[in-house]
Formats: sequence, C-alpha cells, structure tokens
Amino acid sequence: MRKQLMELLESRKDEMIQIRRYLHEHPELSFQEEKTAQYITDFYKGKDVEIQTNVGNGYGIVVTIKGDKPGKTIGLRADFDALPIVEEADVPFKSKNEGVMHACGHDGHTAYLLVLADCLIQLKSELAGTIKIIHQHAEEAPPGGAKSIVESGALDDLDAIFGTHLFPNMPLGSIAFRSGPAMAGRTYFKLKIQGVGGHGSSPHMANDAIVAGAHFVTAVQTVISRRLNPFDVGVITIGSFDGKGTFNVIKDSVELEGDVRYMTVETQQLIEKEIRRIIKGIEAEFGVSCELTYTADYPPLYNDPEISSFVKASLEAMNDSDIKEIVESPMISGSEDFAYYLEKIPGCFFNIGARPKGVETPYFNHHPKFDIDEDALLVAAKSVAQVVCSYFE
Amino acid sequence: MRKQLMELLESRKDEMIQIRRYLHEHPELSFQEEKTAQYITDFYKGKDVEIQTNVGNGYGIVVTIKGDKPGKTIGLRADFDALPIVEEADVPFKSKNEGVMHACGHDGHTAYLLVLADCLIQLKSELAGTIKIIHQHAEEAPPGGAKSIVESGALDDLDAIFGTHLFPNMPLGSIAFRSGPAMAGRTYFKLKIQGVGGHGSSPHMANDAIVAGAHFVTAVQTVISRRLNPFDVGVITIGSFDGKGTFNVIKDSVELEGDVRYMTVETQQLIEKEIRRIIKGIEAEFGVSCELTYTADYPPLYNDPEISSFVKASLEAMNDSDIKEIVESPMISGSEDFAYYLEKIPGCFFNIGARPKGVETPYFNHHPKFDIDEDALLVAAKSVAQVVCSYFE
Amino acid sequence: MRKQLMELLESRKDEMIQIRRYLHEHPELSFQEEKTAQYITDFYKGKDVEIQTNVGNGYGIVVTIKGDKPGKTIGLRADFDALPIVEEADVPFKSKNEGVMHACGHDGHTAYLLVLADCLIQLKSELAGTIKIIHQHAEEAPPGGAKSIVESGALDDLDAIFGTHLFPNMPLGSIAFRSGPAMAGRTYFKLKIQGVGGHGSSPHMANDAIVAGAHFVTAVQTVISRRLNPFDVGVITIGSFDGKGTFNVIKDSVELEGDVRYMTVETQQLIEKEIRRIIKGIEAEFGVSCELTYTADYPPLYNDPEISSFVKASLEAMNDSDIKEIVESPMISGSEDFAYYLEKIPGCFFNIGARPKGVETPYFNHHPKFDIDEDALLVAAKSVAQVVCSYFE
Amino acid sequence: MRKQLMELLESRKDEMIQIRRYLHEHPELSFQEEKTAQYITDFYKGKDVEIQTNVGNGYGIVVTIKGDKPGKTIGLRADFDALPIVEEADVPFKSKNEGVMHACGHDGHTAYLLVLADCLIQLKSELAGTIKIIHQHAEEAPPGGAKSIVESGALDDLDAIFGTHLFPNMPLGSIAFRSGPAMAGRTYFKLKIQGVGGHGSSPHMANDAIVAGAHFVTAVQTVISRRLNPFDVGVITIGSFDGKGTFNVIKDSVELEGDVRYMTVETQQLIEKEIRRIIKGIEAEFGVSCELTYTADYPPLYNDPEISSFVKASLEAMNDSDIKEIVESPMISGSEDFAYYLEKIPGCFFNIGARPKGVETPYFNHHPKFDIDEDALLVAAKSVAQVVCSYFE
Repeated sequence: MRKQLMELLESRKDEMIQIRRYLHEHPELSFQEEKTAQYITDFYKGKDVEIQTNVGNGYGIVVTIKGDKPGKTIGLRADFDALPIVEEADVPFKSKNEGVMHACGHDGHTAYLLVLADCLIQLKSELAGTIKIIHQHAEEAPPGGAKSIVESGALDDLDAIFGTHLFPNMPLGSIAFRSGPAMAGRTYFKLKIQGVGGHGSSPHMANDAIVAGAHFVTAVQTVISRRLNPFDVGVITIGSFDGKGTFNVIKDSVELEGDVRYMTVETQQLIEKEIRRIIKGIEAEFGVSCELTYTADYPPLYNDPEISSFVKASLEAMNDSDIKEIVESPMISGSEDFAYYLEKIPGCFFNIGARPKGVETPYFNHHPKFDIDEDALLVAAKSVAQVVCSYFE
Repeated sequence: MRKQLMELLESRKDEMIQIRRYLHEHPELSFQEEKTAQYITDFYKGKDVEIQTNVGNGYGIVVTIKGDKPGKTIGLRADFDALPIVEEADVPFKSKNEGVMHACGHDGHTAYLLVLADCLIQLKSELAGTIKIIHQHAEEAPPGGAKSIVESGALDDLDAIFGTHLFPNMPLGSIAFRSGPAMAGRTYFKLKIQGVGGHGSSPHMANDAIVAGAHFVTAVQTVISRRLNPFDVGVITIGSFDGKGTFNVIKDSVELEGDVRYMTVETQQLIEKEIRRIIKGIEAEFGVSCELTYTADYPPLYNDPEISSFVKASLEAMNDSDIKEIVESPMISGSEDFAYYLEKIPGCFFNIGARPKGVETPYFNHHPKFDIDEDALLVAAKSVAQVVCSYFE
Repeated sequence: MRKQLMELLESRKDEMIQIRRYLHEHPELSFQEEKTAQYITDFYKGKDVEIQTNVGNGYGIVVTIKGDKPGKTIGLRADFDALPIVEEADVPFKSKNEGVMHACGHDGHTAYLLVLADCLIQLKSELAGTIKIIHQHAEEAPPGGAKSIVESGALDDLDAIFGTHLFPNMPLGSIAFRSGPAMAGRTYFKLKIQGVGGHGSSPHMANDAIVAGAHFVTAVQTVISRRLNPFDVGVITIGSFDGKGTFNVIKDSVELEGDVRYMTVETQQLIEKEIRRIIKGIEAEFGVSCELTYTADYPPLYNDPEISSFVKASLEAMNDSDIKEIVESPMISGSEDFAYYLEKIPGCFFNIGARPKGVETPYFNHHPKFDIDEDALLVAAKSVAQVVCSYFE
Repeated sequence: MRKQLMELLESRKDEMIQIRRYLHEHPELSFQEEKTAQYITDFYKGKDVEIQTNVGNGYGIVVTIKGDKPGKTIGLRADFDALPIVEEADVPFKSKNEGVMHACGHDGHTAYLLVLADCLIQLKSELAGTIKIIHQHAEEAPPGGAKSIVESGALDDLDAIFGTHLFPNMPLGSIAFRSGPAMAGRTYFKLKIQGVGGHGSSPHMANDAIVAGAHFVTAVQTVISRRLNPFDVGVITIGSFDGKGTFNVIKDSVELEGDVRYMTVETQQLIEKEIRRIIKGIEAEFGVSCELTYTADYPPLYNDPEISSFVKASLEAMNDSDIKEIVESPMISGSEDFAYYLEKIPGCFFNIGARPKGVETPYFNHHPKFDIDEDALLVAAKSVAQVVCSYFE
C-alpha cells in the first residue's frame, strides 16, 4: 500500500497546489470559515466516508475513513482558518478577501490533507484500521477549535494523532520534530488596578494607580528570575500598560494586559500562582483593588516520546528524494492548539520545511509577505502518508 | 481720599455685580478673549487715562491712572479669561457660550477692578502717584499672559503690585494672605521612552519599554523621598502612562506625562536636575532612548514679606464691618501666573472669601457648579482700595 | 524682683562656668548619672526647698521652690546626661571619664539652672507662685527620662513649663524660638524579613530575602512621595540593611533598621499605618514572613502658640545688652524628649546661641570637638529668668 | 587487554577502598595538598612512568604511561583536594584533620584512578597509545587547578580527556552522562556602591547607598526575565547585601556579592554585559559611584557530542553485572573546573552512582555527613577502563 500511496500522491501534486491557491484566494477569519468548511465538505461529497460537520465550537469537520480490515484508529489534522492581515505577498493568487490572509500556511495544510485523504479512501480496501481526518477551524484565535473538538467526543476512539506545520524558515525537504515538550503553552491575562483619582498636587488625597502598576511590573519580573527553576522555560510579557490620563490628575486606574509562555503544565501552574500572589501583595501594599482575568488558552504541546521515536524511525526509513533531512527541532516559543489533542491522545506534531526557492531570508509566519514553496505540500503529504503506513503495519 | 473712595465703592456695588453677571454670561477661553477685551476697553473710553491694548502675547490691557500729585507707581491686576467647562451652576446669568465658563471667578476679579479703577480716576486729583490697572488675559493656560506682560516692559516702572483671588471655600468677609512662598510653582513634563518592540515570547529580541517605564516611575519617587529637604515642598505626579498595546507584543515605546509642584525656585531646579539624572540612568540601565519635554510653566508665587506685612497692617487697621477677619493662609498647591509679576516686582497676592450664603460645602474653583457670593466683590474692592490708600500715604 | 534677679545672676556668672566645667569633667551616660544626681542634690542641701530624687525611671530630681505669695506653678527643666563619645575638644576641663562626653551642652543647661534656682530661692519672699526645677536624667537615650517624670505625677500641678537648649551654630546673644511644631518626633523601627535560604543556583528551591528586602526599600519611598501631604514633613531612612551572607548562597533573612521623622502626631500615625501596610504587602507578594519592632520614641515637640507669643513678647521687652536678637527658628529635624512635657503641659522650648568666639564653623552638637561659648550660660539664665518674672507678673 | 584489565581491577578492589580511607583520614584544603601529592608521587615510585610534579599553580601531578605500541594520547583526571567542613559522618576512618573533610568524593576519585593507572602500567605492553593520568589539585577553590594545568602545556598532546564524579544521590551501578552543555559555568561578582553618608533626618544632605543598592537588586532581575533567551539558562543570585549600619545614619556605601550561572559562554557574556550596563545606569540614576569585581571562574562544562556518543556506546556495550544502567543526566547547576580541559580538548565527564546501601535520602556532596558506597570505586574504575579500551581499539 505504501508504494501505491506515494505514487498516487506524486501524481496529484498539482491538484494539491490548485486547492491551496483556491483557499489562499478565499481566506476566512477564525470562527467565520463558513465557505471554507463548505468547500471541504463538498470535496468529500459522494466519497465512501462518514462526515461530521459543525464539530466543536465552530465549523470543525471530522471525516472517517474506515479501512476494510480491522485495526487501530488514528487522527490526521489540518487547520483551515486565516488571519486578519492585509496581504502584501506578490503572488497571482493573492487574497480576494481584503484584510484577511492565509499567512500561516493553513491553506497548504488543508490542501495536502484533502488529497492525502482522497488517496487513502481510494486504498481503503488495503487499510487495516480507521483514519479520522480532522479539518479544524479556528486555530489562530483562542479558545481555538481543537479543545472543543476533543470535548465533542468525536475523537474518543483515537489511538494516536498526527499533524504537521509548514515553516518557510526551514529548507524544502527538511522535516523537524521534537520529542517531549515542543511548543510553548500560553496564557492571556488582564489586570485592572483600581486606585483613587485626584489632583496631581495632592497625592495624599488620592491613591496613584500608575505607581501601583509600576510596582507590579517590577515585582512580576521576580517570578521568572527567582521562582522558576532556571532549567525550565517561562516568559511573562506585559504588552499593554494602559494608563493614559491627564498630566496633572492622579490616575484612578490602570489596565495591564500580558502574555505568559511555558513548556510544561507545572510551569504554568507555578507562574499563575506566583502572579496571583504578587497581585495580593500589591493590593495590600498600595491599598488598591485588583481585578484579574487569567486565561491559559493553549497548553504546552507535548509530543509523546514513544510515538515521536516511531515517527522519527519511520521517516528516516523513507528512501525518498523529496525528504532530505530529519532534524531535531529546538523548542518553539509559539503556541498551537494541537496541544489540546496531545493532552488526551498520544501523538506527534512535526514541521515541514517550505522555504521558497531562491529566498535566503524568508518572511516568517504571520508576516504580510509570508509565502511558501508549494513543493512542500507533497513533502507534507508523503511524510504523513509514511507515518500512516508505518503505523498500520 | 480713603473715606470718599470707600463710599464711592459702596454706592457702586450693584454695578460691580451687573458687570460680573454680564461677563459671566459671555465667557471666553484663554487667548481668545477678544470680546471681553473690547468690553473692558469700551469701559474706559472717554475717561482720563492712558490705555494700552494687546499687551503681551494676547489681549492684555494696561490702563494708567496718573494722580495729580507726584508719587510712586503701583499695579493692580485682575485676570479675565474663562475655562473649557460646561456650566452646571443654577444661576439666571448662566454662560451663553456653551462649553466655556467663568468657573474661577475671573469675572468677579474684572468687575470689581473696573469699578475700583473708575472710582480712582474720579479721585485722581487727590492721588499722589500712579496706578496701573492690569487687565490680564490667559491666566488659565500656560504659558499664561502675565509673563509676556512683564516682558513687554509695560510694568517696568512699578514699585509694587497687588492682586486678589475670590475663593468660595472661605467665608464672606474673610481675607487670607501669606508672606513668602504662598502658591506652588508647577512644571509639565513629557517623557517618551523608546525601546524595541517584539514578540511577547522573545524578550531577548526586543527591549521592553513598559519595564523601563515602570522603573522610571519607581525611581522617580526617590527624588521626593531622598533628594528633597524634608522641610521643603515638592510633588511629582505622573498622571499619564500611555503604554497601551497588544498583550503578546512587547511594547516598543511608552509616553509618560507628569506634573511637578514646588514652593521655591531652588526646589524646581533640584527636582528638574534629579529627574534628568534619573532619565540618564534609565537610558543606561535599560538601553532605551528617552526624549524629555520639561516646561516649568508658572513659578512659585512669592509674596514680598515687607509688603505682606504692610498689607496685613493696612487691612487690620480697617474699621469696616464688611471685613470680618484677616487670617494667615496655608501654602496652596495650586498655581497662579501672578507669580511672574512677583518675580520682578515686590507685591502681595491675597485671597478673598466668597462662600455663597447658606452653603456649607461650596463647589471649589474649576467645578461646573462653582459659584460665589457676589457681596465678595465689594470686599475685594474695598480691601484693595485700602491697600492703595495706605500705600500712597 | 526682676532687676534683683538679673543682678544676682550676673554676679554669679563665674560660678555657673565653674559648675559647668566640673560637670564637663565628670560626664555620665544616660540612666547611669548617679554621681551627677548626687552632685545636684548636694547643691540644694540646706536650702529652703523640697527635693524629690529618683523621679521617673532614673535619677530624675524635682526641686520645688514655693514662693511666699500665692500664684501659679511653673516648671523649668534642664537635662544632665552625657554621650558615649570620646572627647576631642581641646579644653583644659576635658572629660575625665574616657569615652563619655558632654557633647550636647547638658552640662551648661544644668549649670545655669542650678544657679538660677539658687537665686530664685533667695528671692522666694517676693515670688508669687511656685517653681519646680526639673533636673532630668537620660535625655539622649530612648525611652528618655521625660516621659517617666510626667507619668510620675510630680508635674501634675504645673501651669506651664519652659526649657532651653544651647546651640553652638547660633551666635552668642541670639535666642531662637518657634511657635507650634518646632522639633521632629522620631521612630526607631526594625524589620526582619524571613525567607528561605538555598543554593545560589536554585532560586526556585529558596525564597530570596534580599530581593524582598530590596522591594521593601523601594516601595517604602512611596509613603513619603505619595501618601504624605506635600505640605507636611516626613522622613523615612533605612539606615541599616543587614544582609551580609555568602555570594553563592541565597540569603534566608535580612534585618533592616530605620528612622522616621515627623512634625505632628498625625504624620507619625499616617507613616506607621502605611509602613505596616507595605510590610503586609511584601509578605503576600514574596511569601516571606516579617517581624516588625516599631517604637515611636520621642513625639514631635509642639510649643504652645499662646505661651510662645508670651515668651517672645517677654524676651523682646528685655533691655539687656547680653540679649542681642530674638529670631524665629526654622523647624528642626532633631528630636528632644522635652516634647513629652509639652504633650501634657503648655510651654515653650527655645534655643540659646553659644557659638565660641572667633569660630566661624563651629562643631555641632554630638561632635567629638563640640564646644560652647560659656558666656551663653548667663544668656540662658537671664532669658529664662525674664520669662519667669513676666509669667508671675 | 580489556578482559585482563577488568579482572585486575576486580582483584584490587580492596586496595582502592584502603587508599580511599587513608586519603579520607588525611584530607587537605585546596592549594595546600602537599602531603596528598607526596602520597600520590610515592605511589608511582619505581614504576615505569614519567612523573611531572608541581604542575600548574599548585601540587598538580601528571603521570605519563606510554604504551609499547604507537597510538593516540588520552588524559584521565581525578582531583584530590578536600573542603573546609567539620566531618559529621559516622565512619571509622573519619577525618583526622579537624575542620577539613573529603566531602565531595575526591578521595574516591584519586583512589580508583591510582589503582587503574597501576593496572594500565602493568598492561603497557598491550597498550597502543599513551595515557596521561592527571592528579589535579584544587578543584574546589577558584581559580582551581585545571586551568593552570592546561596552561602549563602538559596536556597539549591529548586527543581526548575523560573524568568522572561520584554522586551519592544516584544508585550504585548507575552511570549518568550528558552530551553538550552539562554543568553550569559560574561567576563571582562584588559590587561596591559608594554614596554619601549623613544624618537620617536629612536625606538631601546625603546620598543613600541602601536605596541605590535596592534599585540595583530590583533592576538586575530584568536581566534574567527580559534579556535572556527564555530557552537559555541563567541565574543571578545576590547572596550578600552588606549594608549594616546605624538606624538613624544614612548609609554611605553598601557591598553586594553575587553568583551567576549559565550553560554557555554566550550567556555568560550576555549577562556580564547587561549587569555592567545596569551598574552604569545606577551610577547615573542615583549619582553614586560603583566598583565592580567580576570574575567568571569556571566555564560551563561542555561534553563533546561525538565523544559522548562514543562513551555512551562503549558503556552500553559492557556486559558487566556491576554496571546496571546508563542514563542521561539532566543539566546540573553546579560547576566543575574539568570544564577548562574540555574548552581545549574534546572529552566527556560523567557521573557514577554511589548511594550508600540501605540509605534512601543520602547526604549530598559538601554535606558534613556526606558518605559514599565504596563499591562505586570499582564501578568508576571499570567504566573508565572500558572507555580507555574502546578508545584505543
């Protein structure tokens, strides 16, 4: 089956590219991907699969391919939402939806997986197990689609799950993976500090929220510098300190917003505990009252070590001129809601090089000039296909 | 002359009130007091005085009353601009200029001084000296009118200068004065701290302007707590910390605005030097670059001790049932551009009680419901008249 | 009586100086002034007075001189303890008690008051009232002697109390007084911050007391800069930050000691409340536990305004070539336990110039080279005598 | 040769233990190991080796064993200094040198290596290469012995170097190694901040070094929290804040001492640059002057990846019941001057489990009750022997 599958994929490479270009021209924002979902559903129409639509909290789609022989059940996932970015890439298939852009490669993820799914359907008779194709909505915007798809129960029977991401900063033919903690979890928080306003010349009649806010910013640095194990990874960024006011009026309240990153759930818990502790301290110290919204939106992405070893061995065993190197990825500080699947199901998420030909310093994901080498779609399809075949052997 | 003058003033009390009400209905913002200036000029038309208009950087007016006998030259000043406030006071002569309001009593200052000036003109033959009536524009908005009037040279020949302010938080009949430092000087400053933006998960690739700004706020507290003589007065308020941004993006720059108060020029210089020093420190410490606008707009108001003693003695010697008490004022953290006159000319600025009858907690100056007891106009006129008479004796 | 008294004092000027030199040679530390007290008691032996010894918590002495005519009762106080200083002044009557020195002029205070008391005893027949001479121990060392003498009840019948202090930074013949708040109150505090020690490379296993202590130092600045009325006076100095340890061991605890100054009881209460609040905050913020000793040892010294006016008028009325000027003293940041008397009894504490002849920059009180012009003893005696005479008139 | 060598080692296990006990009873401090060095030199007396003594900055010894056949040259290192600790371990061979203790296992390192060296000498005829036995002095006290031995040139011809450390927190039979950065580099720094002293009540006349020091402590946290790549490892501990003084005297200077840890030279350079920057900032901000001693004493220990792989493979290939597991070590925040050898010579430093039998929570290195299972000496000898044999094959 492996050989047939690879040949099929090679023969349908152009189709992958055409699908990707169509999706690129018609991007839709997270949770608003109605037409994209329809496009995907239409693709499967008439094929011998079971289709669930509107899975989870949006336009999620789960397509079940039941092999003719009994076996395990695995999931393959691609996301399909786009970003609120005005495209600046100079391509003939530029976004027709002004202000929305597939600047993270989700068009490519969906394109290769549709074609791969179709090939697997074709080879169903040889398939000893079940494959669930997960077309996921809303990866870019918390709370994301993954969590709700997991909670829907649609994946309860999975034995393993796999996913990939296209990255233009890696060369074509390169596949990077990492066992264990691989991508950061992240938290959004908002802190309102309420003091008492007053005239600038009479601080004793007021309670200066800017001073309290400044002390919070200063104190919170110690969570990273003194509370964290130096061998663990954690970041706290306060990206917004909204204390705009009038120069001679003591500010009554300020609103801070921040971002926390970590590679383990334990670190997330530690940092949350410490931030809450510091806020209690600031309240007592400055007599202000604080209101905190603290939302750990995506957990750290943890690749199952056993399955990661299996993936690595499987990929290394490929004798395919399109697959040039299997490298170990460093930990990545970005986040992915694929992490939610991996909280429940052992699996592996790995990265596919997609650096455009002739480009030395490619635009990274989320850049208005983001672009990929479309040959990477076949690399993605083949590498996932390889893993699928190995898994069912 | 004293007795005659007092009787004249008493007889024209109603006129003072009418003028005040007219001005109250027709307030104009600082530097835009064209019609008010015209009204004042018209008042003097045909009288035996010399009138200078457009004195200084706006609609300033200086009216010279030359007594028939030789003697010293003094100035009497009233300001005539209004504030950008929507009036909420429930009076029949409410502002007809929506959004502009005489909420600081300048209408009353001008009203009593016009009538007093007219009475003095009437008594010119007995006057042994010269009186310059200064109708000043733009007291409320830095750089103010006073500084430019002083610089115009129109007051170069003054031996002394006097002014008063109506305050509804003091009872009618009460006059408060203070020798030496009496009202605070103030400085406006703006500090832009420029770091380098970046992704929230990669602090090492950026340079967080919010963290640098927070350290500035924390460090600047030590100017007051450790650099200032504890027996001196100084306040630094940072009223605005504009660092609004996106939670997961490291902020590239923040803009702070602040207000500094002090009772002496030495304290102003000390605080400015220390703030500049701290900014240099923050630049070195955090590798940011700072841009500072630092504007000492009104100096501390310093009443000449000798003249203040004279004023006190003069007022205490009045045997007038309208003048109920002469009290010592505490230092006031508010500012007044009368301070510019006192930098060059010895003089005294004192306060006139104007609490509305039957009101226990009056609305303070600059409040939309600010109101005065109009009987205070006569108190102001009489007390200034008394000082004038004593001075020329 | 006044004339006689002044003549008597003049005639006994040398005796004052001899007594002062004797005391200077035999200084004793606070609470250990056994021989000094004996010397004083001996002085009164055989005289027509009532002597109480061991008053209060030490060697305090109260000598009651009952005038032959009825009248009010007043107190006159001089302190008699010395300081733990090795004398470096080049005088023939240098301290014979190595390491102890009358470096604050208490020898002079006692000397003039002994002679003045003796003269008053001589003139008892003309005295219309009662005078209590208070020879106070332990002014230099908290809790001081004054508080306990007040609490002993020995002064319960006083109508007024007076005291003076010699200051070599004021010229001979100058007397400085101040109505209302005149000298600062002060507080000693000790703060122990207990964290958890650990190896320098593992901050997460410890809880760094130095970091918590540094945040306390930083935060406590805001009490002065933001909680205090800018027109009030307050100082918080942390004079000791004892966090000596080993460079690569996280410090488990630090001990801070500090000094607080203020001119009113309200400011003392405000600062204490705010410091306690900040400590609560530091505990919560850093998870440390704090132990605070907070001792307001001497209250602010408040001269009764009415009595101060009386003193001023009385002194200004002296026509005495030894008394050259009566000036207003600025507020003084030093402290005096005379403040305890003034909490209960209206009175006035004023300062006597004692700059050594020919010296431009004299050594100040508590300096090892401290010295006075002994002519100031007569000035002190006469000025207090004048106040006494005026009071009983 | 391998089989023979292993049998020889097994037969001389008791000798290793006896040597270790002798050394344990006679510990000597770093740089004072005269008798230990003599003991070692005596051991080699009469054997067919070349001995260099006093190598480097102390009692370092290099013993060269030249195999009869040509080949590469490798180094094996054991350190022999002890610690200033009063031994509390309950063993019959307790330290006879009160206050000095082999609490880090260097006695064991030396013991196994002496016996191993002797066995290798015996088998010289079969040895295809040269082995340099490095008996190193002064590992515990910076600047250490290793750096100077490297600089002496004695090891210039080494192709590879190996060393081991005994750890009682690992079970007997366990060997842990790590490729790449394995142990932290460390820096000692001392910062003197010089302000101006003064009376606690007059902060404006002084310049408070404690406040400046507190701001340094607060600001330096941002080096870890904001300047470091979150995926890198760095620690800054200020273990000593020596600001002990008098509560009411403003402190003129404070002295801080600290410890910095990192896993790469780049991180060391980054942290040093940032700390220096912050000090410049504190100088400008507070007008203090700073004096910094900054000494990076031991670099991060970096195990050559290729040689580490070789070591791992070699050890895993052992079929020896004494070697129970080969595990990957986490990074260790402790430091080792073996790092200096690895800066110049590719090699691998690995750890040998030595948990005393029946003990669940053993006392760690540097504890007064530190103890090892002496069976670990044979494990160390055999594992190093294995690496040697593999290397020369």
